[in-house]
Amino acid sequence: MEIFSYETLKNLSYQVFLKMGCPTEHAELAAEALVAADLRGIDSHGVARLSGYVRLWEAGRINARPHIQIVHETPSTATLDGDAGLGLVIASKAIEIAVEKARIAGTGWVAVRNSNHFGIAGYHTLKAVKNDMIGIAMTNASPLVAPTFAVERMLGTNPIAVAIPALHQPPFVADFATTTAANGKLEILQRKNQEAPLGWIQDKKGQPSSNPHELKHGGALLPLGSDREHGSHKGYCLGAIVDIFSAVFSGANYGPWAPPFVSFLPLPSDPVGLGLGHFLGAMRIDAFRPAEEFKANMDKWINRFRATKPADGYDKVLIPGDPEREMETERLENGIPVVESVVTDLRDLAERMGIEKIVTI
Amino acid sequence: MEIFSYETLKNLSYQVFLKMGCPTEHAELAAEALVAADLRGIDSHGVARLSGYVRLWEAGRINARPHIQIVHETPSTATLDGDAGLGLVIASKAIEIAVEKARIAGTGWVAVRNSNHFGIAGYHTLKAVKNDMIGIAMTNASPLVAPTFAVERMLGTNPIAVAIPALHQPPFVADFATTTAANGKLEILQRKNQEAPLGWIQDKKGQPSSNPHELKHGGALLPLGSDREHGSHKGYCLGAIVDIFSAVFSGANYGPWAPPFVSFLPLPSDPVGLGLGHFLGAMRIDAFRPAEEFKANMDKWINRFRATKPADGYDKVLIPGDPEREMETERLENGIPVVESVVTDLRDLAERMGIEKIVTI
Repeated sequence: MEIFSYETLKNLSYQVFLKMGCPTEHAELAAEALVAADLRGIDSHGVARLSGYVRLWEAGRINARPHIQIVHETPSTATLDGDAGLGLVIASKAIEIAVEKARIAGTGWVAVRNSNHFGIAGYHTLKAVKNDMIGIAMTNASPLVAPTFAVERMLGTNPIAVAIPALHQPPFVADFATTTAANGKLEILQRKNQEAPLGWIQDKKGQPSSNPHELKHGGALLPLGSDREHGSHKGYCLGAIVDIFSAVFSGANYGPWAPPFVSFLPLPSDPVGLGLGHFLGAMRIDAFRPAEEFKANMDKWINRFRATKPADGYDKVLIPGDPEREMETERLENGIPVVESVVTDLRDLAERMGIEKIVTI
Repeated sequence: MEIFSYETLKNLSYQVFLKMGCPTEHAELAAEALVAADLRGIDSHGVARLSGYVRLWEAGRINARPHIQIVHETPSTATLDGDAGLGLVIASKAIEIAVEKARIAGTGWVAVRNSNHFGIAGYHTLKAVKNDMIGIAMTNASPLVAPTFAVERMLGTNPIAVAIPALHQPPFVADFATTTAANGKLEILQRKNQEAPLGWIQDKKGQPSSNPHELKHGGALLPLGSDREHGSHKGYCLGAIVDIFSAVFSGANYGPWAPPFVSFLPLPSDPVGLGLGHFLGAMRIDAFRPAEEFKANMDKWINRFRATKPADGYDKVLIPGDPEREMETERLENGIPVVESVVTDLRDLAERMGIEKIVTI
């Protein structure tokens, strides 16, 4: 484990995106979106993925200089073609369009096709919050999840994020995979060679498994709820809704056709759309109620939920977004710890691309 | 168990609503919305609740002749005040407004305050589907659910429904409580005096319980995911989002202030808004992509998911909405079975209100 400053990791990412040929503005947007994951403690989606993006670019699957354009629109909606660019950039543009639509129509909704992985969903929603709007973001992803009763991997971990502004309180920010456990949590167990709790994964026959390497042997992640008796059909519904909103609305690849993040896996030979899909939304809070009134009530909501009586052994009940925000404060001050394998990967990447070596704090 | 035709139960409900003083149009809307639950197999939300609605009206908590009005709007949004009317009627009006907004702005979103329970969420979304739109409905409800790490009941079972039209395939209809198990499932176990699976409920100290009567002793329903290790914080996020969209957007009562469905429980003495809240949406599919193209891809999505390889012991993978639609076909043909306690309740109600006795098929 080595510790780097936020600026160091963001600058490294910026330099890498520039070397890929991204325009300056895109490299800035992408670097900020990527390292927001490290900052908020979702280490699986931050610089740990930087070399993965580079490999996708080397494989010709990411276009560093995309012509991102609206291909269809109404007063409150737009469909955006990302021209196979970085999802980090395309989603940043998409939420801006949603915010602009919302200014005039009250709400704005942007379906995105022909994109790639967009980093953490929550990051994009916060741009709406800055404009006194509720932000919504979701994306489909490489198929790793079996529907209830099934053994085939049909859906991605398909996250949903919703961010809601308050007055004196920090915003409510929910950001979660629609599976019982996100893939990043499995990766941690894989590295430590520890067992996974039952309910996270199944083997290739659909039996419960605690082997974190099960996906390499034909196993699958389970939808939120784990099994039918505990509501996995609801997690399957959620993952399916994200898939349809992100990819069927926009004309991207859906379900098992969603392109893999890793460049060594082939693309499906019979695509049903273009690239990966996202769905982003912005709702002006004063489209429903005066903004100050809404935000004062959000403060009251948050204060009341913070005051919920905790169960024995717990000192408090959390508001969605608390852990990530606390992590952000801590890491901005004390730096971001990066595991050795990722540090090596980043140093190799920097050397290979002719970028200055990163140094720890 | 006795079996009644759909028409018999709908007509009884219609007569009851008329006797309450509802205008004809409202009684029709309410009866259709209510009995849609019985038809689709969600028996807990249908005629089993009819006398509950009557008791709320008798207690002065339901206004049979409400002046339902838009109190705030933008091109794609409206805030609707239900004037303490039947949620069954108010939500029917709200989805119509959402559909009209969507015709012009691409999408329409209606936050509703000062309402009561609106029946099953899925029913309302199907009205959008008939207009080649995606329908969305959610509502907050009486607090029965403890957030992750908590022992206090802060949220309702807060359901979400999303209905999506296809071409030759029937629509995709997801409709689910954001808890591991809906309250209706507990009620069935209570009647049969059977144990609940661990993960559905906790006792008043926050310990897992299998006693379906636990809520009477200070226990709580658990958010989808059951416990932290299995993602209950995600179910808590979902329930919270439904609460905020339904009640903070609209100016209704949220969280623990949400009014109880049963008339014998007092209303909170310090309300933070008016009545119960809902949130309904309609998105024109051709606001994103030509409708035929979207629907053809939905057919492809549905066909591919239907063809998912099932696990041993299962013959098929379901598409959200399959079970309810199969039930509807079966019950339209063979009638709707009603348990004896509900039949007695309905017969008492009919007699008390001077309505003709219902007869079985």
